Amino acid sequence: MFYPKTVAVIGASNTPNKVGFMCIQSLVKSGYKGKIYPVNHSLHDHDLLGFNVYPSVTAIPEEVDLAIVVIPARLTLPVIEECVAKGVKAAVLITSGFKEVGTESGLDLQTRLADIANKGGMKIVGPNSLGILNPAIHLNATFALSLKEIRAGSVAIAAQSGGMSSYIVDALDQEGVGVSKLIALGNRCNLDFDDMITYFAHDELTRLIVTYVEGMDKPREILNAARQAVQRKPVIVYKGGRGQHMDRAAFSHTGALAGKLQFYKAAFEQTGILTVDSIAELADMAKALVSQPPAPGNSVGIVSVQAGPGIVMADKCHELGLKLAEFSPTTRRKLRQLVSPLNSVDNPVDSAWEFFNYERSVGIVDTVLQDDGVDVLIIGALEYPPSLTKAVVGVCKNYTKPVVACMSWLGQTSERGREQKKMLEKSRIPIFPLPEKAVTGLAGLVRYGELLRAMNHGDGNGTTPY
Amino acid sequence: MFYPKTVAVIGASNTPNKVGFMCIQSLVKSGYKGKIYPVNHSLHDHDLLGFNVYPSVTAIPEEVDLAIVVIPARLTLPVIEECVAKGVKAAVLITSGFKEVGTESGLDLQTRLADIANKGGMKIVGPNSLGILNPAIHLNATFALSLKEIRAGSVAIAAQSGGMSSYIVDALDQEGVGVSKLIALGNRCNLDFDDMITYFAHDELTRLIVTYVEGMDKPREILNAARQAVQRKPVIVYKGGRGQHMDRAAFSHTGALAGKLQFYKAAFEQTGILTVDSIAELADMAKALVSQPPAPGNSVGIVSVQAGPGIVMADKCHELGLKLAEFSPTTRRKLRQLVSPLNSVDNPVDSAWEFFNYERSVGIVDTVLQDDGVDVLIIGALEYPPSLTKAVVGVCKNYTKPVVACMSWLGQTSERGREQKKMLEKSRIPIFPLPEKAVTGLAGLVRYGELLRAMNHGDGNGTTPY
Repeated sequence: MFYPKTVAVIGASNTPNKVGFMCIQSLVKSGYKGKIYPVNHSLHDHDLLGFNVYPSVTAIPEEVDLAIVVIPARLTLPVIEECVAKGVKAAVLITSGFKEVGTESGLDLQTRLADIANKGGMKIVGPNSLGILNPAIHLNATFALSLKEIRAGSVAIAAQSGGMSSYIVDALDQEGVGVSKLIALGNRCNLDFDDMITYFAHDELTRLIVTYVEGMDKPREILNAARQAVQRKPVIVYKGGRGQHMDRAAFSHTGALAGKLQFYKAAFEQTGILTVDSIAELADMAKALVSQPPAPGNSVGIVSVQAGPGIVMADKCHELGLKLAEFSPTTRRKLRQLVSPLNSVDNPVDSAWEFFNYERSVGIVDTVLQDDGVDVLIIGALEYPPSLTKAVVGVCKNYTKPVVACMSWLGQTSERGREQKKMLEKSRIPIFPLPEKAVTGLAGLVRYGELLRAMNHGDGNGTTPY
Repeated sequence: MFYPKTVAVIGASNTPNKVGFMCIQSLVKSGYKGKIYPVNHSLHDHDLLGFNVYPSVTAIPEEVDLAIVVIPARLTLPVIEECVAKGVKAAVLITSGFKEVGTESGLDLQTRLADIANKGGMKIVGPNSLGILNPAIHLNATFALSLKEIRAGSVAIAAQSGGMSSYIVDALDQEGVGVSKLIALGNRCNLDFDDMITYFAHDELTRLIVTYVEGMDKPREILNAARQAVQRKPVIVYKGGRGQHMDRAAFSHTGALAGKLQFYKAAFEQTGILTVDSIAELADMAKALVSQPPAPGNSVGIVSVQAGPGIVMADKCHELGLKLAEFSPTTRRKLRQLVSPLNSVDNPVDSAWEFFNYERSVGIVDTVLQDDGVDVLIIGALEYPPSLTKAVVGVCKNYTKPVVACMSWLGQTSERGREQKKMLEKSRIPIFPLPEKAVTGLAGLVRYGELLRAMNHGDGNGTTPY
C-alpha cells in the first residue's frame, strides 16, 4: 500500500475543482515515480494531465498495487468487487456517505463493503478518508496537493480525520520534524488503528507512532497492538471528540465528560501510550522523541544564559511533574569556580556572564551533566560563537543523558544561530523556540522512560529501544 | 524615553563582544534616526562606528534625552549623578550587580541609585535591564541586535526579564503581531510596572498591554494601575517564578506553590487582568485581542470545512470553559437547506461539501452569525477561492460579534491561502495555524468581555473600549 508501483484513480475527472481531478494532480505534482492510471468510463481514451484514461480498472494492462476510489458511495460496491477481481492489493476510499452519516443504509453499505474486501483479501483505507502519504517515495495519495510539501522523516501518523492529519503533519513540519508515513483511516471498514500500529512498529523508517483517535471500535485490539509497539518505539495518542459522540445532554455535563476522558487517558497510560492535549504539545514531544533517548529519571538540570527563561523552564517542569535536580555539594563547588559571583549555583544555573567564555561555558554544561542527580539537561542557548557550540555539543556526547536546547526563532534565524542550529541538529539535540516548549518536549522523554520502566516491572533493567 | 532625539551610550566600547559595543551597534543597525553619542573617557575622540566618542556625558554639546549606561556597577553612582546634572531625562541601566545579587552592598548600591534619580527627577530603567524598544521610530536601545527585526504594532510589553521580553516579542512576531513599545524593567529601582501600565494605557499606539512579572514590590499600586488600564484596553500578566523566590523546601512542596500561584491569579482576575500560563498562550490571546472586540458572551459557533478540526475546537472550547452554542430551531431549519444531507446541522457545523459552493458557504456563516445564541464565531478555513473568502468576510462585517479563523501553515502559504490571509487580515480577522490556538485566542476575547462586564457590576451595560 505504501510502496505501490502502479496506482489507479477510479473516478478520475478533468474538472479542476473535483476531487477526482485533485487526486491525479496530487500524484503527479508530488513527484511520484510509479505508473498512474486514471479510470473513468465516460472519459475513456481521453488524456488527463498526460495520462491515458481507462474505462475500468480491469481494462488496465498490468497489475494495480493501489486504487484510489473517488466515485459516489452508491456506486462503490461493484467497483470494489471489480478491484478484488483484478487483484488490487489495497484501495484508498475517499468517498464519504457510509457509516459516518449515522443512517441504517450508510451502515449497511459499509458492512457490505467490508465483506467484499475481507473475502477478497483486500485492504480498504476509509471510506471517508483523506488518503495516504509516503514522503520517502513522494507518494501523495490524497486529494490535498499541499501535502506534497511534507518532508520525509521518522514519524508515522494514523489519524481518523483527514483534517487533523493535515494539521499534525503541518505542525511537525514547523518544528522541523518529518514524516515516515501517514494514513487517514476515516471510517476504518477493514483497516484499523491496531493494524497500523503493528505495521508502524515494524517499519524501519519509523521512530515514533502518532495517532489521532476519535472513537475506538475495537479498543482491546488497539491497546494490545500499542502494548507491543511501545517496547520498540514510543506511541502518542491525541484523543479527539472528548464528548462529541455522546448525546447532547451528556456533552454539556462536565463531570461525565471529564470522567470519560480520564478513563481513556488511564487506559492509554497503563498501556504505555503517551497522551497529549493539543497538536502543539504533540509536535513538541515528537521533536524530542525522534531524536533523543527516553530519560533515565525525572530530575532536570537547566543551564540558561538568560535568567528569566530559566525560571520559566523551572516553572514548567514543576507544572508537568518534573523535578528540578538538586545539585550535589561537589557540583556546587565546581560551579562556584565557573559561574560569575553575581549568580547563584542553584538549578537553574544562570550562565549569563560566561556567555563568551569558552572554557567556563563548556565547564558548566559538563559539571551539570556529571551530577548523578541530573537525568536530563536543558540548555537555554543564545547565539554562542560556533566554536563554543561545537565544544558544548561535544561535551553532551560524552553522556547518554538526553539533552534539549532552547533558542528563540529570531536567534535561530540569525547568522550565528543558523550555524549553531545546524550543529545541534547534526548531534540530534532538538532546539525549541520557546522555553515551555523545550520542557514539554523533555517531558515526553521523561514520560516515555517512566512508562518503559513501569512496563518492565519497575526494576529499571528492562531493555529500552535506544 | 521612548521618543529620544539624542541618545548617549555611556561605557561605549570598540570591542565587538562587549555590551558597550553591542548597544551602539543595536542603535545604528536598527535604523534609529536620532543623534548617537558614545561616551568613554579612555576612547575620547576616537571614532566608533562613525561616531565621535565623548569623554563624559557633560561634554556632549547638546541636550541628552536618553542615556544607555553599561559601566560596572561600582562606577554607576557618579555617572548617574552626572546624568542628573546634565538634565538627562531617562537612563537605561543595563549593568547588573545590584539588588538581584542578594547582598547587603548590592541592595545599598541600588537604594543610593534610586535616591539620586528620584531627587534629580530622572527615570531609570533597570538596573539589570535589557533596555527598551520603540519599533515605530526604529529605536533599539538594547544590547540585542536581533531585536531590530521586531515589527511595529500595537502590543506594549513591560517585562522584568530581558530574556523573556525577547521570547515574547519573538512569539508575537511569529503570529504576525507587532509591538508598540517594549521595556525590560529589570530591578525596577524607580520605574515599575504601575508606571508602565499607566503610561501604556494612555499610549495611542497601544491596544494591548502585556506584562511578564516575577515578583511585585508594590502589588497595591500595580493592581490599581491595572484596574484603571483595563477599562481602556486589555492587560495580560504572565507570572514567572511561581515558586522560584520561595525557599528551597517550599519550592518542592506542591501545595504551597500551587496555592501561591492561585492567590496571584485570583488577585489578577479580580483586577480585570487576563492571566496566561505560557508564551504561546499569551501570543494567541494577543493576536485575537489586538484585532477583535471583547466577546458579548461565551457561546461559540463553529463552522469548519473539516470535521476533525471542528471537533478538536469543540473539545478545546469545553476545556477552556467556553460553551458550544445550541442553535435555535430557525437556525437549524435554515442550515438544513444549506448543509449537505451527509452532515448534521449541529454545532460545530461541518460545511465540507459546500466548499466550492459560493452561496451555501456564505449562507452557512451568515445563518450561524444571525443566531442570537451565538456570541462568537470560529471559521475553520481551507483555501477557499478568493471570491468566496471576500463574501464570507463581507458577511462577518455585518455583525459586531468577534470572528476568528483557522488555517494550517501549509494552507496559509499556498497561493490561494496567501490571498485569503491578506483579505482576512485586512478585515482584522485573525488566522490561527492550529485549531486549539484559534480557541485559545477566542477565549481571550471571551474572558476580557467577562472581566469588563464583571467590573461594570455585571449588568452587561458597561462601556467597552471598542
